[in-house]
Amino acid sequence: MITVLAGGVGAARFLRGLIDVIDPASITVISNTADDEEFFGLHVSPDIDTVIYTLAGVVNEEQGWGLAGDTYQMLERAKALGSDAWFSLGDKDLATHLLRTELLNDGKSLSDATAALASAHGLSCRVLPMSDDRVRTIVSTADGGLSFQEYFVRRRQQDEVRALRFAGAEAARPAPGVLDALREAEAVIVAPSNPLVSIGPILALPGIREALIETKAPVVAISPIIGGKALKGPADKMLASLGHESSAKGVARLYADFLDVLVIDQQDASLASEVESTGVRAVVTDTIMRDGASRRALAQATLDAVLR
Amino acid sequence: MITVLAGGVGAARFLRGLIDVIDPASITVISNTADDEEFFGLHVSPDIDTVIYTLAGVVNEEQGWGLAGDTYQMLERAKALGSDAWFSLGDKDLATHLLRTELLNDGKSLSDATAALASAHGLSCRVLPMSDDRVRTIVSTADGGLSFQEYFVRRRQQDEVRALRFAGAEAARPAPGVLDALREAEAVIVAPSNPLVSIGPILALPGIREALIETKAPVVAISPIIGGKALKGPADKMLASLGHESSAKGVARLYADFLDVLVIDQQDASLASEVESTGVRAVVTDTIMRDGASRRALAQATLDAVLR
Repeated sequence: MITVLAGGVGAARFLRGLIDVIDPASITVISNTADDEEFFGLHVSPDIDTVIYTLAGVVNEEQGWGLAGDTYQMLERAKALGSDAWFSLGDKDLATHLLRTELLNDGKSLSDATAALASAHGLSCRVLPMSDDRVRTIVSTADGGLSFQEYFVRRRQQDEVRALRFAGAEAARPAPGVLDALREAEAVIVAPSNPLVSIGPILALPGIREALIETKAPVVAISPIIGGKALKGPADKMLASLGHESSAKGVARLYADFLDVLVIDQQDASLASEVESTGVRAVVTDTIMRDGASRRALAQATLDAVLR
Repeated sequence: MITVLAGGVGAARFLRGLIDVIDPASITVISNTADDEEFFGLHVSPDIDTVIYTLAGVVNEEQGWGLAGDTYQMLERAKALGSDAWFSLGDKDLATHLLRTELLNDGKSLSDATAALASAHGLSCRVLPMSDDRVRTIVSTADGGLSFQEYFVRRRQQDEVRALRFAGAEAARPAPGVLDALREAEAVIVAPSNPLVSIGPILALPGIREALIETKAPVVAISPIIGGKALKGPADKMLASLGHESSAKGVARLYADFLDVLVIDQQDASLASEVESTGVRAVVTDTIMRDGASRRALAQATLDAVLR
């Protein structure tokens, strides 16, 4: 069993490579849910949806999230009726949110709803939310605390991030199966996701860091920072504004207590010894996922780094 | 003030004529809600929506309900995910149901939600649900009890109706303003809607029949049965299977305790004396609403029947 800690787009693309090189049924994905938000009373789980849509091959490839060929009739109508509809909810996409919300309102857990959606999309890997309890990332800015989607979508990541808080994390329990998936894995992979707001909330749950430290499985991460920059999203700015180094070494430091190997891009080959100064072994390869071949190569290189 | 008891398509078309001949701000619509149903956890009020969409000029004219130019991306996707999505929910239409459900989940009443939606659609008439309490039509058939939408949409009105029940009606209260709108009206109009399942649930609420009997306002109905047939829907079959006469006289009998005037179609001119044998005055005119001119003429004839 391979267990993957996952955020959104970067993780989903990595996983799409991984299911091509090992049996999907042997993969357990632990998905960040601290970006979840309610719109029109619907429970939206952006990271889970991005992973499911990508693995099911129905994702909008260009943007990396949402469904291919989606339309926005509902959203446009809601705006016409005076609604402040700032979050992109496609018409097809709504089916996911409606089915999830109906299951939750019927008393099912987010784990149950996620399993049902993954199965309805034909996936054979296991997708677990990090927790069935409510955890929400609060981004502190000069204008006060914002929910993650307010920061990320509504205000387009333009605010300087002064602090991050994962409201509810202390009291939340990892979802059923999460700790076992870390303890019993053959290898644990931390996907190339934002270490602070995608992986950070998972690590903030009680017992997760301990399980990662104690597991007999090797733990390998792929750096989402290449040449000091994030390929996508605000990870680089966020690392800097929160006092971290926006580099592979900065990533290694954040994970150093549990990480065995950090896969870094060939552009960062010269940083290998700096990364290794944190006690983490560095493996250098091409980490940019341009297409199916490069995704598969990265997945294979990541597995080889710890399983050979 | 003119108060109109209203079902769906027939009522909506009549009201569209009425707002052309008198100030819409003087009109109060009391809408049947016993056809309401939940789909994917969304509160759908088909009769209210048909009235609002029609009066706002955004209705799908051909079918008489739903929004013009709507699409069904959500519904198709839900079906692809294994959902038994038998009720037509357009993508644009979803905005209405999402906004209503959000307001209800925030603790607002159906009256509040209806007023908000009517206002968002630019209406100046008042649209009241018959009740803020839950009342549901149960259609008894050889296969047992069906919700109205199961009978009407899912099974295409093919079951013989053996009995009707309005679950919750006895304990329900008319919505705020409903009884006053009957007592203080200058005239009360019963729209050309199914007398059993559109007007019947309104009449089944405590206090409504009494208010209609006691009001000083004249009460006038337009017969939805022309030449023994319903122009649209199953009213004729339903009247017959429940032991009523499928005719203008049959309609007059159902309303005789409170009705002053029944407007009947010129095709039924020969029935005028039979209608009047029930104690209700008959007024003969063209009641078929083909276009704007015929809708306005019917509205004017109906007003003239009681206000001149």
